[in-house]
Amino acid sequence: MITTKGYAAQTANATLAPWNFERRDVGSHDVQIEILFSGVCHSDLAQINNEWFPGIFPMVPGHEIVGRIIKIGDHVRNFKIGDLAGVGTLVNSCRKCSHCNDGLEVYCENGVITTYNGIDKYGDNLPTYGGYSNTIVTDEAFTVHISEKLDLAATAPLLCAGITTYSPLKHWKVGKGHKLAVLGLGGLGHMAVKFGVALGAEVTVLSTSPKKAADAAKLGAHDFIVTTDAAQVEKAKASFDFIIDTVSAEHDFDFYLSLLKLDGVHICVGVPPEGIHLNAFSLLMGRKSIVGSASGGIAETQEMLDFCAEHNITADIELIDIKDIHKAFDRMEKGDVRYRFVIDISTL
Amino acid sequence: MITTKGYAAQTANATLAPWNFERRDVGSHDVQIEILFSGVCHSDLAQINNEWFPGIFPMVPGHEIVGRIIKIGDHVRNFKIGDLAGVGTLVNSCRKCSHCNDGLEVYCENGVITTYNGIDKYGDNLPTYGGYSNTIVTDEAFTVHISEKLDLAATAPLLCAGITTYSPLKHWKVGKGHKLAVLGLGGLGHMAVKFGVALGAEVTVLSTSPKKAADAAKLGAHDFIVTTDAAQVEKAKASFDFIIDTVSAEHDFDFYLSLLKLDGVHICVGVPPEGIHLNAFSLLMGRKSIVGSASGGIAETQEMLDFCAEHNITADIELIDIKDIHKAFDRMEKGDVRYRFVIDISTL
Repeated sequence: MITTKGYAAQTANATLAPWNFERRDVGSHDVQIEILFSGVCHSDLAQINNEWFPGIFPMVPGHEIVGRIIKIGDHVRNFKIGDLAGVGTLVNSCRKCSHCNDGLEVYCENGVITTYNGIDKYGDNLPTYGGYSNTIVTDEAFTVHISEKLDLAATAPLLCAGITTYSPLKHWKVGKGHKLAVLGLGGLGHMAVKFGVALGAEVTVLSTSPKKAADAAKLGAHDFIVTTDAAQVEKAKASFDFIIDTVSAEHDFDFYLSLLKLDGVHICVGVPPEGIHLNAFSLLMGRKSIVGSASGGIAETQEMLDFCAEHNITADIELIDIKDIHKAFDRMEKGDVRYRFVIDISTL
Repeated sequence: MITTKGYAAQTANATLAPWNFERRDVGSHDVQIEILFSGVCHSDLAQINNEWFPGIFPMVPGHEIVGRIIKIGDHVRNFKIGDLAGVGTLVNSCRKCSHCNDGLEVYCENGVITTYNGIDKYGDNLPTYGGYSNTIVTDEAFTVHISEKLDLAATAPLLCAGITTYSPLKHWKVGKGHKLAVLGLGGLGHMAVKFGVALGAEVTVLSTSPKKAADAAKLGAHDFIVTTDAAQVEKAKASFDFIIDTVSAEHDFDFYLSLLKLDGVHICVGVPPEGIHLNAFSLLMGRKSIVGSASGGIAETQEMLDFCAEHNITADIELIDIKDIHKAFDRMEKGDVRYRFVIDISTL
């Protein structure tokens, strides 16, 4: 076993604190990564606080992991010691079902194994522990390559915020000729702006706050709508082909659906704890859709990282000391982060 | 003006009673139809009772209209006196916007004119009155042909229940190789079964009541699932490509979404007054969609009627005397109709 230093919540709602734990030895298909940076996702806090389902504790969060390979198993073919590597939201799946065979491991019919807060029933049968730690052992099949060209700390959020927005934009073929609205300018939303622009869409940021207009423009958005301004809203009615909705708080779906054109698609990637509530007419009168998308499969995550290297796309981040994780959580909850906190794991 | 006999609600929630009113004279592009049969739609009751929005009273409901042409205007090209004809849920639209140009008049950007409970702002500027009446004057562009091969009374419901289910099945390309679940075995649901089967899908009826199994089989359904039977539900999890949901009462969307496969689509054509409520995870974990569809455009309504003539499809109906309309409403509200009431207008 490999002794690992991490930051863990010992019980639900607990403050994260240093904790040493064991990871499995490097198996023949495994790589061991020295973790250098780990992004901080809303879902880390949600899971520590049991907001989604009862968690497995102690819990070491973190599923936006980047680092360097320090050991490989005998049968590893795609990585060598010294390579940069990343791990996202999943570390195993059944690898047998039709979804796994289609490269959609995140939708594994037998249940995907998440990077933390899971039990690896297909592998070592141990609880999974995430990236708020100094090292991780993963099967190379669930490990991705990271270009040396990209700023490594700013690359970490691509492993969740990046793929979670890239995957639906690709799946619903968002691109040239489309008007895309981005709802929520946080970790996911700012990536959605960058990807939407890179894919050729005309991107508008929707916000309740006029203060974010300059930021939206800096990120590359072509337009900005203050949703509390009746005149701006009136002009925007029935004007978008797609909305990508990254908001994990209560919001008015009927209102946003009214901004979609005929056959418009409202893509949900956030998880409002209060759920989704709408009037059926908001869908019927315009043949509109509300759809959801989880992060993405391994092949698509690699494709996204390659796309980012090609287009020089990374997240905008604030690098933090791991001791400040709860300060970061507090600011994240208030939306006070531009746009993703990333832990410098050297501070562990 | 043309003096017309009808049944009207004089105010919201009023009992329908005989009422004489005037329709416009037959214009150069108009046809006058002697109405023979008029279907009874849930939305007739909803609109009389102001459940959707404040209605225009007196209100003559009815948007499943079939009859015979008795007069035509000078410029009418597609109909002659003596032809069978039908009118569905819409009688006018702007005819200029991109949706009208695409044959999607029901989604007119400037507002479709419904067959009753509307004001024809593009035409005579009069309130529109529906099919619970002995005659109607419509522009030939909003009038469809009906085959002499079909039973005429049983054809009336095709004008709303038919097109409302046919249109989304065609739009989402439901057919061979797809598993389609039909939710709600009423006027719309029983048509969805017939169309699903005719389009080549494997059709399952979902019902809380085992009593409906024989009826479902008679309509052509290949399978039947009692949704209160845990074992049957367990087997049906993640098994459908599509659900067509015709229910206009509160129901559990998370439950039904759990029956959809990866990328499954839940098509709403009913309007639950309580709205649609769901957990975002129900969409995210399987990249699922909830979509809506209104009735359909004129060209597609004609296509549907031609498809019905080719496949000998009509509704299963109970023919009623117009004096019994409130008895029919009461039974309809209880789901006690197989599967659509149709008014014999000769009883008016």
